[in-house]
Amino acid sequence: MSDESALLTHIFRRSAGMEARFPWVLAGPGDDCAALRAADLGSVVLAKVDQLVEGRHYDPRVTSVDLIARKAVARAVSDVAAMGGAPRAALAAAALRDGFDQEDELFDAMHAWAEHWECPLVGGDIARVAGPTVISVSVLAAAPPRGVVGRRGARPGDGVYITGRIGGSYASGRHLTFTPRLIEGRWLCDTLADRLTAMMDVSDGLGRDAARIAAASGVRIEIDAAAIPRHADAPDPLRAAADGEDHELLFTAAASPGAACPITGVSLTRIGEVVAGAGCAIRSPGGAWLDASSMGWEHRG
Amino acid sequence: MSDESALLTHIFRRSAGMEARFPWVLAGPGDDCAALRAADLGSVVLAKVDQLVEGRHYDPRVTSVDLIARKAVARAVSDVAAMGGAPRAALAAAALRDGFDQEDELFDAMHAWAEHWECPLVGGDIARVAGPTVISVSVLAAAPPRGVVGRRGARPGDGVYITGRIGGSYASGRHLTFTPRLIEGRWLCDTLADRLTAMMDVSDGLGRDAARIAAASGVRIEIDAAAIPRHADAPDPLRAAADGEDHELLFTAAASPGAACPITGVSLTRIGEVVAGAGCAIRSPGGAWLDASSMGWEHRG
Repeated sequence: MSDESALLTHIFRRSAGMEARFPWVLAGPGDDCAALRAADLGSVVLAKVDQLVEGRHYDPRVTSVDLIARKAVARAVSDVAAMGGAPRAALAAAALRDGFDQEDELFDAMHAWAEHWECPLVGGDIARVAGPTVISVSVLAAAPPRGVVGRRGARPGDGVYITGRIGGSYASGRHLTFTPRLIEGRWLCDTLADRLTAMMDVSDGLGRDAARIAAASGVRIEIDAAAIPRHADAPDPLRAAADGEDHELLFTAAASPGAACPITGVSLTRIGEVVAGAGCAIRSPGGAWLDASSMGWEHRG
Repeated sequence: MSDESALLTHIFRRSAGMEARFPWVLAGPGDDCAALRAADLGSVVLAKVDQLVEGRHYDPRVTSVDLIARKAVARAVSDVAAMGGAPRAALAAAALRDGFDQEDELFDAMHAWAEHWECPLVGGDIARVAGPTVISVSVLAAAPPRGVVGRRGARPGDGVYITGRIGGSYASGRHLTFTPRLIEGRWLCDTLADRLTAMMDVSDGLGRDAARIAAASGVRIEIDAAAIPRHADAPDPLRAAADGEDHELLFTAAASPGAACPITGVSLTRIGEVVAGAGCAIRSPGGAWLDASSMGWEHRG
């Protein structure tokens, strides 16, 4: 048996009892496909894939296998949070750099983090490559009862809000330890209902991502840089708006959600407003308006 | 805008009208997650991820972008076929080798093949890597009305069958052009109902895969090499049983399904039987019994 067969055996063993812990999993790893009970996926199923690339999304010299696994799962889970979804199952495919010998630890940790966010790893694949490790994770989730919140519903007069604080995520290491805003995303959907008009997770930088909501909704978004809640190690608001990987929720709403999520205490800060027009601008502390669409972190391989 | 932003824009444009062609797609690419109507996913949702690695699953020097895309999608679709499922949606993540400049053609072709098999590409991610291209595809599918057919139900007295013919898949190029046995898989489920006791797709070689059904079911499988249907360019039955990437359906049944699928005309051949015991053996044309569990193609990176 090669190490791949051994790993697959290890995956099956690791999944023992998954069906008891997550009753919607009718069959986990071990058959050609996993099987999930549709009734537990809600009336609308959300689906998302994201990938994590060694050397770009994490530095292999300083990042533990546990944190690599955590980020691989958390990135897709954060996208589910941004639609108010409840994670239900995950699939992971890993192409591992030749010589990487911690595949058991990696899949153990991905299993643990996936179960932590209630989306047990019901399937996986593994290969070896003469190049950087690439991990892709797909997550399935139940949409919130109010229906899907996308990026297209922002309307003039809405406020623009963000959860938590942003900036300096990569430099500080927070990009490895962020908590996907699942509770806050679902709470916003439940509390604001139709008054929650658009939501997304901030992965490529606040400026760039706000510009995406503006474009999808056919409106203009104006952000006040001074209002942007920053981490203590990221004092410059314009730079914080350009950093990426924050994984906070950016949303527009026709009513105030209050100053914090009452379940978690995570802050909710109004940073701007939706107006008629096009594009996204950030007013600097000095009063100048900057085009936000070119700010932010561009994914490059 | 970098080439990634341009590609994402291209993906959104490419998806225009997807919701009209596939009414269960409530939202395709463009939001943080795709959204699918659960009622159209059946009472049980099947999920599978598979990945395609340049230089191992295809030779980049001689393989067209269209066939790379086709195989990337077809591998996961074939796993759905092996459970009698009907594909509904796909997600694709690609880590592209630096310098590969046909990303638009690749995603166009993945979209086209995914729609061909009725699982439109509702989400994707792209990155660039200093190494071989890796493409992962996840497919969601509706399970057949009879319920999930796995690998655990083979019982002594069942016949062992295979669709089509096997052998020489990689050498002949058939590994790039095989047709996932969706119609046959669903027809077998509908026709045999509970008499279809186990099914899987032959990807790692008939011998090794039959041994997996035997192990999962707690039975012994005995295969007659002379009965194995081979392609004309793969006359040696033991070698055909060890080649991989056939993507035919191997199944056990308590009743004969007949000689062919009446819808497609694809042959159904009895190649052996299920008996009490453990393991899987193949009787060579000379009469010797060979252990099948070590035969077959082992995935190595």
